[in-house]
Amino acid sequence: MNIHLDRHSTIPLKEQIYLDIAQRIRTELFKPGQQLPSVRQYAAQLGVSLLTVVAAYRLLEQAGLVQTIHGSGTFVAKQGRGLFTASQQTGMNQANPWDWQLTVNDYLPRASMWSQSAERLPRSIMDLATAAIHSSLLPIGPLSASIQKALTLYPDAIGKLSTFGGDPEFIAVIADYLKTCDISLEPHQMLISNGTQQGIDLFCRTFLGPADTIAVETPCFSGAIDAFRLSQATIQPIPVDSQGIRLDILEEVAEKTSLKAIYTVPTYHNPTGSVMPLRRRHELLEFASAHNILILEDEPHRELVFTASAKKLPPPLKMLDTSGRVIYLKGFSKFLFPGIRLGLLAADGTIYKRLLAAKSIVDMGSPLWPQKSLIPFFQSSQVKKHLTQLNQVLRKRSQLVTKTLETSLNPCIKWQNPAAGLYLWLTLPPQISADSLIPEAHHRGIHFLPSSIFYPGEPAANHLRICWTNLSDQDLPVSLAILCELLNHAVQRDCQ
Amino acid sequence: MNIHLDRHSTIPLKEQIYLDIAQRIRTELFKPGQQLPSVRQYAAQLGVSLLTVVAAYRLLEQAGLVQTIHGSGTFVAKQGRGLFTASQQTGMNQANPWDWQLTVNDYLPRASMWSQSAERLPRSIMDLATAAIHSSLLPIGPLSASIQKALTLYPDAIGKLSTFGGDPEFIAVIADYLKTCDISLEPHQMLISNGTQQGIDLFCRTFLGPADTIAVETPCFSGAIDAFRLSQATIQPIPVDSQGIRLDILEEVAEKTSLKAIYTVPTYHNPTGSVMPLRRRHELLEFASAHNILILEDEPHRELVFTASAKKLPPPLKMLDTSGRVIYLKGFSKFLFPGIRLGLLAADGTIYKRLLAAKSIVDMGSPLWPQKSLIPFFQSSQVKKHLTQLNQVLRKRSQLVTKTLETSLNPCIKWQNPAAGLYLWLTLPPQISADSLIPEAHHRGIHFLPSSIFYPGEPAANHLRICWTNLSDQDLPVSLAILCELLNHAVQRDCQ
Repeated sequence: MNIHLDRHSTIPLKEQIYLDIAQRIRTELFKPGQQLPSVRQYAAQLGVSLLTVVAAYRLLEQAGLVQTIHGSGTFVAKQGRGLFTASQQTGMNQANPWDWQLTVNDYLPRASMWSQSAERLPRSIMDLATAAIHSSLLPIGPLSASIQKALTLYPDAIGKLSTFGGDPEFIAVIADYLKTCDISLEPHQMLISNGTQQGIDLFCRTFLGPADTIAVETPCFSGAIDAFRLSQATIQPIPVDSQGIRLDILEEVAEKTSLKAIYTVPTYHNPTGSVMPLRRRHELLEFASAHNILILEDEPHRELVFTASAKKLPPPLKMLDTSGRVIYLKGFSKFLFPGIRLGLLAADGTIYKRLLAAKSIVDMGSPLWPQKSLIPFFQSSQVKKHLTQLNQVLRKRSQLVTKTLETSLNPCIKWQNPAAGLYLWLTLPPQISADSLIPEAHHRGIHFLPSSIFYPGEPAANHLRICWTNLSDQDLPVSLAILCELLNHAVQRDCQ
Repeated sequence: MNIHLDRHSTIPLKEQIYLDIAQRIRTELFKPGQQLPSVRQYAAQLGVSLLTVVAAYRLLEQAGLVQTIHGSGTFVAKQGRGLFTASQQTGMNQANPWDWQLTVNDYLPRASMWSQSAERLPRSIMDLATAAIHSSLLPIGPLSASIQKALTLYPDAIGKLSTFGGDPEFIAVIADYLKTCDISLEPHQMLISNGTQQGIDLFCRTFLGPADTIAVETPCFSGAIDAFRLSQATIQPIPVDSQGIRLDILEEVAEKTSLKAIYTVPTYHNPTGSVMPLRRRHELLEFASAHNILILEDEPHRELVFTASAKKLPPPLKMLDTSGRVIYLKGFSKFLFPGIRLGLLAADGTIYKRLLAAKSIVDMGSPLWPQKSLIPFFQSSQVKKHLTQLNQVLRKRSQLVTKTLETSLNPCIKWQNPAAGLYLWLTLPPQISADSLIPEAHHRGIHFLPSSIFYPGEPAANHLRICWTNLSDQDLPVSLAILCELLNHAVQRDCQ
């Protein structure tokens, strides 16, 4: 365990230690029952006073995350977190011939994607957690035909390494496709990554370290927080409102703190679903320019447009950027080919070149054949046809979901009406923790994401995110009914 | 530019600064003509005395890497490094609207794979640099058939996310295949990565940081050095002999330095091609166990066996490891499907789990469809058939290469007779720098790797690596003839 302490931060050291350990426990890098280092060991390791560690442990205890047994030490609490915990405990009770491995330090501060993934649950669980679209709604037929065709057109591509930045021919067809979405990028700005998650990570590898601070929309996509934490940068949470990241707070923060970068999902913010209007986009760019700050813009699915209000989406920040300040991440996995998972990173000048150098170090470039195999698909009219159909289906689904929640959910549970986006962000009364509902949810056969993983610092506990596009037509109404029953029951029990 | 200085190291600070900047210049992260920060700025940034930076800059000047112009500053020298430099300089002379980007610090200490890649050279260049097998020698037909078949068997896989560790069905067939190579691994030990390069990087992300030291075979695969440098760990070079890493020196080092890990390519060492015999493998494991050190074992192509001596390869270290200490990386790209680039990482216990958590952070798992598309191939008899054929072809090629060099090369140029391996490590007389031959090589239409990139610290300059498997049957003899002429000419000129 390596905790990066920022001694210049306004956050007291005891709270920094508390938050770091709390995130490891919440994302299960520390297992229930695992013993924490003694106060004395820990104080020596971190170079802080005994009192600081004692205070941090007390905060952990108050949060119910650890238990101190006098004479024995401090242990991660065993309280139920659903099926995850059960399977973990089974693992723990087995004899482990590699106990010495626990002495090997690592640099992983949290791993929420891993800890919350439905892959660790029984197959029968209905997954309202993963932000994906069910494969029955994806263009499997046209993609198969494209792969077939590519086997004839580019058979040698199976036997050749890709160039680090991606296949030039694939990049060219992607550039053409993007033009149809009013996104104009030149091939020399474009780099193919393994999904946008790798794009975030490449940015971290290249530009973030312990001396840097990144401002992060809060709540925020948990995979991005994981990557920022891994870089050991200081994360500065910035609240969002219905128009995205709050500039008034950014301005305030910038007076006291030197920010290196801002992470934003301006179009269909994850998890709240909001869209940043054009005016705030311009203001954000001006702010970044005035303070010489990089912007990491993440855009997973601008193509999904199924409400009237979503029809006039403002352009990506990258299209408004004239100074090469925005690093733009464009995903395709959500609505086209999650099983092939290629994403796009676009940047300019030396920022681009340095990200390319990082890509060469981390995996030598995304593989050639998958890129070639998608060329016929992007060259055909199938993409547009698929998107038209998909948006129709999602429109109907979205209406169904809204109607179900309106009629079945206790009115003291609120949610943001989605402009589009694949998820809903539900808000429970403040005294109810979504984490505490996970065991019962698993018991009843559904899985969702508790809000705790969406916060880089101390989490708000009374929200949850559900994705309504990842289930089959049959499972969706069943799982929504279970969800409503579960939440209503919790509200009735706790809100009397 | 963020230089990690180790104030407890036996290497003086001025040399640490020198080595760091030298590697950036050699791998072209710093461009010819680029101005270095002033001595004053730099000393302040690093927290060292002016004299230390002056001394480091003097070392850079003595090495011919920078030029100081009085009154103007210190600039990266413009001396020719072949076509790379020419293209770079063209880029530099263009107006650059993003000059401010140069003020953005990054964490990339070197990027040799990128700087030396043939992809940045004209297409007509004959590539003796990339360690790959020409696609005409790879099983494109059987792989195409496998992809075809998978389209029928697993069409939905195109539309589904993979689990973080890899597809269980793919992992199971890989486990079966490995058994035919006498490698016995259980699925719960296995993680699918994007080539072994990502495996190295996952290890770095999880276990290496500024406080750690990793012992590295020297010379060493340059992509691994890039990743270790990026982690900011201290790299401890350990020389190799004809039997691999030298244990006597490891023992000496371990008396003074606490090592966290050792990186080794015991089977067909890159770049020298040597094979570590069984006895040294056992000794290395005992050493690691006695000092509680992790071993990162990289095995890119154990399947290539085309000399009599190579027929009895000792088992991987991982097969001899009973304590869960070895992290094993197994590649397939070299001899099966470089265009799909999937690799295997195998580890045990919490070491495995933490690497899996890191994989979830960096890219959420390797994509599902490419894994599914290879299942029919591994289930067929085509793999073994291909390997038999390939080894026959390589045997003939290897003989041709050896004969050409024996008859055409000046006898004061030496090379190690390859047990197998795809490359030859040539040694020139000590006064000749392989780097200095690159411009002429490019001029004559060939590319090879100079030894400088294979050293984590101060490089030996008088070696070069050629890969003799990446060219067509037609190009190989032509490029070898050019190489011999070029080297002979250099020797005649410099060895009188």
